[in-house]
Amino acid sequence: MSNNLKEITSLQNPAIKNIVKLSKNRERQQQQLFVIEGARELSLALQSNYTVKSVYVCREMFEKTKYPDVLDSLSKDIIFDITPVVFEKIAYRENSDGIVALAKPKPHTLNDLKLSKNPFVIILEAVEKPGNLGAILRTADAAAVDAVIVCDPQTDLYNPNVVRSSVGGIFTVQTAVCTSEDAVAWLKANNITSYAAELQAAEFYQNIDFTQPSAIVMGTEAEGLTDFWLRNAKKRIKIPMRGKIDSLNVSVSTAVLTFEAMRQRGFY
Amino acid sequence: MSNNLKEITSLQNPAIKNIVKLSKNRERQQQQLFVIEGARELSLALQSNYTVKSVYVCREMFEKTKYPDVLDSLSKDIIFDITPVVFEKIAYRENSDGIVALAKPKPHTLNDLKLSKNPFVIILEAVEKPGNLGAILRTADAAAVDAVIVCDPQTDLYNPNVVRSSVGGIFTVQTAVCTSEDAVAWLKANNITSYAAELQAAEFYQNIDFTQPSAIVMGTEAEGLTDFWLRNAKKRIKIPMRGKIDSLNVSVSTAVLTFEAMRQRGFY
Repeated sequence: MSNNLKEITSLQNPAIKNIVKLSKNRERQQQQLFVIEGARELSLALQSNYTVKSVYVCREMFEKTKYPDVLDSLSKDIIFDITPVVFEKIAYRENSDGIVALAKPKPHTLNDLKLSKNPFVIILEAVEKPGNLGAILRTADAAAVDAVIVCDPQTDLYNPNVVRSSVGGIFTVQTAVCTSEDAVAWLKANNITSYAAELQAAEFYQNIDFTQPSAIVMGTEAEGLTDFWLRNAKKRIKIPMRGKIDSLNVSVSTAVLTFEAMRQRGFY
Repeated sequence: MSNNLKEITSLQNPAIKNIVKLSKNRERQQQQLFVIEGARELSLALQSNYTVKSVYVCREMFEKTKYPDVLDSLSKDIIFDITPVVFEKIAYRENSDGIVALAKPKPHTLNDLKLSKNPFVIILEAVEKPGNLGAILRTADAAAVDAVIVCDPQTDLYNPNVVRSSVGGIFTVQTAVCTSEDAVAWLKANNITSYAAELQAAEFYQNIDFTQPSAIVMGTEAEGLTDFWLRNAKKRIKIPMRGKIDSLNVSVSTAVLTFEAMRQRGFY
């Protein structure tokens, strides 16, 4: 048994009930809080200067973490021990090191994005599935793109499935949320050439020169890009579809385009 | 109301209860049947000469399908009308055109694979998540690879989540299931050079010549490849990881390597 007086043992504890509530977008908006699960994810959030409001730790599980230092920089006042039963109630996934934390969202404005001299940007229009957005953020981290811009999203960035499937990419990748109109204006202001990905395009992606400041614009799997983006992007590009199905998962097509751009740039 | 005497209206109907049972691997093995959902998927299975044993159709939903011809080639004796309530009980997903079918699995042996003159093959070791396997089959269709070989799988090919997430790729892509030992012998017999993907490899994928007969070998996300494959593959290759997370989704890394190979080959 823990001697920690603060240990939470009851599923009826208001703090625990509130964590469950935060799976809803409305609650996240009102409370300006979201849920982080996992020691590594929390560590990445802290490195990216997220403000962590409270941390709930199941010590029996935390003992096995590969990131035992993650709590060191945090005030003891915001760390609460919880029992395995309570942890199971608030955890979305297994292998999360016995850690659930609440943190403050960032604003994610276009103006806050800091670009390299030769930026490469991923723009997502109306992305629907949290798992796809998370997977794209993970890819964006691996490829070290300048930013991911999410236009008119159908899911919010801090949806627990986005946070989880990004494996921390939500914290490590510069991300802006805005309207498509604002994104087009921003591209123009930053002299970035945009390439709209779509099945009917005339040009194949492998023939495009991505060595200059570039953005790829990806639509939804079901509907593709809207006319707005097809009109406003500099060029339309496509990935050769050589099979019978004629479609790729959007996180897969984003990765194929992104890594081709990085290959052309010599991964510098 | 339908005048079809065969219309199934009861959730207690034995055929309906059996479809639900087939979500279990053991039942699929014993009965040698699996579930296909969706008109397009059924159409692709029929094109690939799968033997369809029975089809359950919710006419109200099927009216809206983009593939109204899918039932034309089937004997009326194996088509059963069902009510929306019954459909909801047996359907895994939305937008499946009101169709659920039962079909016979294929054997998926290495010896049945037919190769082109210059094959490109995807080998997956111990793939765990059905969604990843399905996504890779979808990518394999788009890239028109010769075959996907699944070694020592932790999930079976006909898991409903594999079938669903492959969007029909399970039917359109040549797929073999075997031991890793058999796969190595098969690669040798067919003069195919194998490239093991792993984070610690010395060579970057973009410097590999994929224009000759090649296979990429992908491990699990959690553990990577076993020593067996690291020893038996011709070369170890990696994708540059330039972020903080140091990992990619396995379906994403498979796609990046596969499309780089196809790009080098001029997508012929």
